[in-house]
Amino acid sequence: MNKILRGLAPVLAAATALYPALAADEAAVLKTPAQVVAAAPQADWKPIAPSDLLVMDLAPDGDDEPRRVVIQLMPAPFSQGWVENIRKLAAAHWFDGIAVVRVQDNYVVQWGDPEGENPDKAKPLPEGLTVMSEADYTARASEATAPELREKVKALENLAQMMSNVSDLAPVEVLHGRDPYALATGFETGWPVASDGKDLWPTHCYGSVGVGRNVSPDTGTGAELYAVIGHAPRQLDRNIAVVGRVIAGIGLLSSLPRGTGELGFYETPEERTPIVSVRMGDTVPDLPAYEYLATDSASFAAYAYTRANRKDAFYIQPAGGVDVCNAPVPIREVKP
Amino acid sequence: MNKILRGLAPVLAAATALYPALAADEAAVLKTPAQVVAAAPQADWKPIAPSDLLVMDLAPDGDDEPRRVVIQLMPAPFSQGWVENIRKLAAAHWFDGIAVVRVQDNYVVQWGDPEGENPDKAKPLPEGLTVMSEADYTARASEATAPELREKVKALENLAQMMSNVSDLAPVEVLHGRDPYALATGFETGWPVASDGKDLWPTHCYGSVGVGRNVSPDTGTGAELYAVIGHAPRQLDRNIAVVGRVIAGIGLLSSLPRGTGELGFYETPEERTPIVSVRMGDTVPDLPAYEYLATDSASFAAYAYTRANRKDAFYIQPAGGVDVCNAPVPIREVKP
Repeated sequence: MNKILRGLAPVLAAATALYPALAADEAAVLKTPAQVVAAAPQADWKPIAPSDLLVMDLAPDGDDEPRRVVIQLMPAPFSQGWVENIRKLAAAHWFDGIAVVRVQDNYVVQWGDPEGENPDKAKPLPEGLTVMSEADYTARASEATAPELREKVKALENLAQMMSNVSDLAPVEVLHGRDPYALATGFETGWPVASDGKDLWPTHCYGSVGVGRNVSPDTGTGAELYAVIGHAPRQLDRNIAVVGRVIAGIGLLSSLPRGTGELGFYETPEERTPIVSVRMGDTVPDLPAYEYLATDSASFAAYAYTRANRKDAFYIQPAGGVDVCNAPVPIREVKP
Repeated sequence: MNKILRGLAPVLAAATALYPALAADEAAVLKTPAQVVAAAPQADWKPIAPSDLLVMDLAPDGDDEPRRVVIQLMPAPFSQGWVENIRKLAAAHWFDGIAVVRVQDNYVVQWGDPEGENPDKAKPLPEGLTVMSEADYTARASEATAPELREKVKALENLAQMMSNVSDLAPVEVLHGRDPYALATGFETGWPVASDGKDLWPTHCYGSVGVGRNVSPDTGTGAELYAVIGHAPRQLDRNIAVVGRVIAGIGLLSSLPRGTGELGFYETPEERTPIVSVRMGDTVPDLPAYEYLATDSASFAAYAYTRANRKDAFYIQPAGGVDVCNAPVPIREVKP
């Protein structure tokens, strides 16, 4: 094996592996991801603060059943200006009475003010919303507060430097770190992220929530939001702010009738699904508590490993890899 | 740059590039994928034979609107035993009266005989169905009839040989060819495929149709089918037979209510969506004609390039890559 490449191996492993620790219990190979998650000790589960939850109640369905969607907002250092705007909009009850206006198959469900593009009829926004910059779609090393984030950025910077010395086919990657869209992918305090070795950014996966906007240089306020309901549209990464993810009720959004207008917009007001209210989780009575599986835990490493290497009674051929959006971070309701 | 790596460059380009020709018109960078497809000359569109279409009519919806789903069956050399079984089942009208029994969010919609697991009540299968082997989940070079398939396999074999000489970090890949699940991905006569350099297989993408089965070594007959309605479950590749793809009406399946039982199975018969009939396209009156964009055409190369490098009024940061399931092969209805 080429000596320079050999020297790169530990750097590559540290910087690009999807699994924080590859030393997953060998027995994990024979378990399903669901079994690994079920066996995770309580210490590997982290609480999600109710103050970071957005509780969106759609109008009841045709059978008069309630429809509640719960969204977890993105933590620092990502997209915080938009997240603060969303907190202000929820506190002002601004979202109450808007609607789902667009459902495009294999892409997004989008909600906002149906009259948002009409200056005469648009619902006025609260004062004091922050105008964010396109540079804020990513976080830079200097902004990263979590130590594991800084470490990953440093490893990637080293990697980029070493790679530029050996190959203009760069980036090369080890099997488990490769990704069609970025130099590296991984998980940061419970969220899927990608990096080019300089910046880090949250990825668009199934269930991700992002900020609708007009053409560049508009960056959106957070008053118009969408959730991904199809194959991960990773081309949106670094082009739109990701502000959260749906942690409960995604099926209520993904099963809405598809819009027949351009880009899946509904053509008549009757087709829209009204949004009754959006509240912060810490103001909603009897909301269940939620936890996520810590992505720096041994349990998560084993989970990601089994997602990549299914070899149980059903699977005969382990894939040997998994993409960052195909190992969704396990989230559970806590039984009281 | 390392000399051996430099020597690999053309092999890598030939074997792993998602775009058959990277020399896409520079102007394409400024066009959207939809514009590239709209500009494709008629010569780049290929007809889909009606005899390769499965026309599935679901029971009308709550507003008594008809619900038709059209599935294109997989061509040789992939999965042909199962495809032949499905043709026999359709000819015998065996599918008529079965139902959608499972809708699992971000995964699959599945249809079959609701009593299929009950020996006393199961609908008898027609005689003469072929029992396929697990080895048939992939096609080998010797089975590949299309010249471009043979060429790709050969290039990948060369690549695997050269790689083993230079690196135990193998496989290394160029940016645009990398994939978390396989050595290489690409398109073969209009279908997304992946390879390990030895075998080729069709990939599980959004809209792919596969054959439900029990635990290994069962391989399924084709009487129970599913369509992917979420992020590409590529871990199923080489573990289940892919037999086709939905080319019209996928939104009718993906918007069905999610099942609340284990794995998204419906818990009561009332929740199921009945399938009225399934017929081969050449027996269905007034079926529209369909065409696909030839994947070895310059138009498709430009389309894939723009999918990977969005840089129009909306996008500020081209991804620089795209995964094989995020560049769906364009299919259109032909206006008579």
